[in-house]
Amino acid sequence: MSIDTAALLQGNRRALAKAITLTESKLDSHRQQAQELLESLLPHTGNSIRIGITGIPGVGKSTFIEAFGLYLIKQGKKVAVLAVDPSSPITGGSILGDKTRMEVLSQQNNAFIRPSPSGGTLGGVAQKTRESMLLCEAAGYDVILVETVGVGQSEYEVASMVDFFLVLMLPNAGDELQGIKKGILELADAIVVNKADGAARLMAEQTRQHYSNALSILQHSAFWQPRVLLCSALENHNIDTIWAMIEEYRHKAQDAGVFAHKRNRQNQEWMWRLVHELIDRRLKHDPHARSVCDAMQNKVIAAQTTPYIAAHRIVESLKG
Amino acid sequence: MSIDTAALLQGNRRALAKAITLTESKLDSHRQQAQELLESLLPHTGNSIRIGITGIPGVGKSTFIEAFGLYLIKQGKKVAVLAVDPSSPITGGSILGDKTRMEVLSQQNNAFIRPSPSGGTLGGVAQKTRESMLLCEAAGYDVILVETVGVGQSEYEVASMVDFFLVLMLPNAGDELQGIKKGILELADAIVVNKADGAARLMAEQTRQHYSNALSILQHSAFWQPRVLLCSALENHNIDTIWAMIEEYRHKAQDAGVFAHKRNRQNQEWMWRLVHELIDRRLKHDPHARSVCDAMQNKVIAAQTTPYIAAHRIVESLKG
Repeated sequence: MSIDTAALLQGNRRALAKAITLTESKLDSHRQQAQELLESLLPHTGNSIRIGITGIPGVGKSTFIEAFGLYLIKQGKKVAVLAVDPSSPITGGSILGDKTRMEVLSQQNNAFIRPSPSGGTLGGVAQKTRESMLLCEAAGYDVILVETVGVGQSEYEVASMVDFFLVLMLPNAGDELQGIKKGILELADAIVVNKADGAARLMAEQTRQHYSNALSILQHSAFWQPRVLLCSALENHNIDTIWAMIEEYRHKAQDAGVFAHKRNRQNQEWMWRLVHELIDRRLKHDPHARSVCDAMQNKVIAAQTTPYIAAHRIVESLKG
Repeated sequence: MSIDTAALLQGNRRALAKAITLTESKLDSHRQQAQELLESLLPHTGNSIRIGITGIPGVGKSTFIEAFGLYLIKQGKKVAVLAVDPSSPITGGSILGDKTRMEVLSQQNNAFIRPSPSGGTLGGVAQKTRESMLLCEAAGYDVILVETVGVGQSEYEVASMVDFFLVLMLPNAGDELQGIKKGILELADAIVVNKADGAARLMAEQTRQHYSNALSILQHSAFWQPRVLLCSALENHNIDTIWAMIEEYRHKAQDAGVFAHKRNRQNQEWMWRLVHELIDRRLKHDPHARSVCDAMQNKVIAAQTTPYIAAHRIVESLKG
């Protein structure tokens, strides 16, 4: 597959889309080519703010991203929207699949919208989204929005690849508490109570108060205390305040010297995850290692050997 | 080190204590000997109920374990008390270190109390506690109580090695909510509100209600809905009810066919954790692999290569 790198660096959306398609390919030769392309583009990456956005279905994620994206474009930004949706690995993801969901945003010259890739290769959907993110940065996008639905580990995956993690909520604490997974509040740099309009305003304020209390008992970094804001994406209310907050976060994180540090940590943790995944793959695909794994697993279940001895034998089988 | 296996199998506590000391040794030759001993004893293991007990300092863990242990001994059981305390890896653990904490229990012929091992070797404190558990079973102990404090990952470690996980709470929901980590409620098979005596009874009942509500929104297995009980270890109140509940759990789990299944799963997950830990050790200790890891980590931080390429190079270095 031939990629016009110069065009990509100049922001050509067709070249960008083609490069992303290359990284998503399952062909070994394409994977190799994609990694070489990414390595060559690395010096041009990193110049964006990466924002993760999650929330249960019905919270208004598309409406929010459309309103937020259009606001950013009016401020002169270039905005890329990516998605991590592990819930439909075959069809390629149900979120962002239909561009008409963000009809106005998708027609902007300075917007780039890409649906969730289908999983399958090493690192899964998250790996591909990380690579797409780098390609968007090389193409000059200032703001990368990574959308996800609250399925499985997807929020953790997204939180571990972005600078700022934003959780959208509905103005109804009672229902919400059941929909939200434990642990998500600990990931949030901010909670935005969307649909705080019309008759729901009072309930939204109560919800805001509720989550402010919940967040205050969790431990946080020295430089940032997570906030809870109200917003109405439909009425374009408070969209500017949310962006101002994220800008404030970026400046505070940079002043505290932790902005780059966090990205380095994310990259290293990601590298080690891939190391473990690669080794597991080898243990599964190498016929000798695989037969040792199967035999050891059976012996452990039959109480014929200890997990400790079994683990040693499995690791020995990697040498061959 | 010479271990009298026949004496251990007959329940000799000195032989048992010596065997545990062997598994805790950091000498390679002792590790080898310990694994051979464990493998030979495996047919005699598994005939106990393994109960994990956690709770914040001040909740009355020792008083509870003493009252519970003495009750079980009166029922004709042999009771072993082990501990997982990763908080003091050098001194050997602060919990159970002082046997006088369970003065009456420790003097019983049918009780065996062993403080937390110090970490250090593969698998850490949890690995050694798992091995001690097997040795206690081989020595004929019917009930293994594994105590832990809520530090780091210790609750998860203990929950992944026992049949039943019990969380002790104080009769004060307000304070408790802040002390308890998110996620612990999801591990609990039962919550016991201790110190439900005297003036605290009403508060204890409110706390019980509070946690019943909290548990009811979490998803559980088909055969068991976690319960919340009141108890006063000091006044020996409801100790019998707690044991009856655990017995009921065991029967229901066995009837549902999941009792042995859970142990098999725990053993397999443990084996795979040891595989990854062994590989990480090799990457750290093998000079060639280590230099590749360091170089790749630096290249990733300097944005000279991608985590994907770096991970591949690191795994390649294992072959040599």
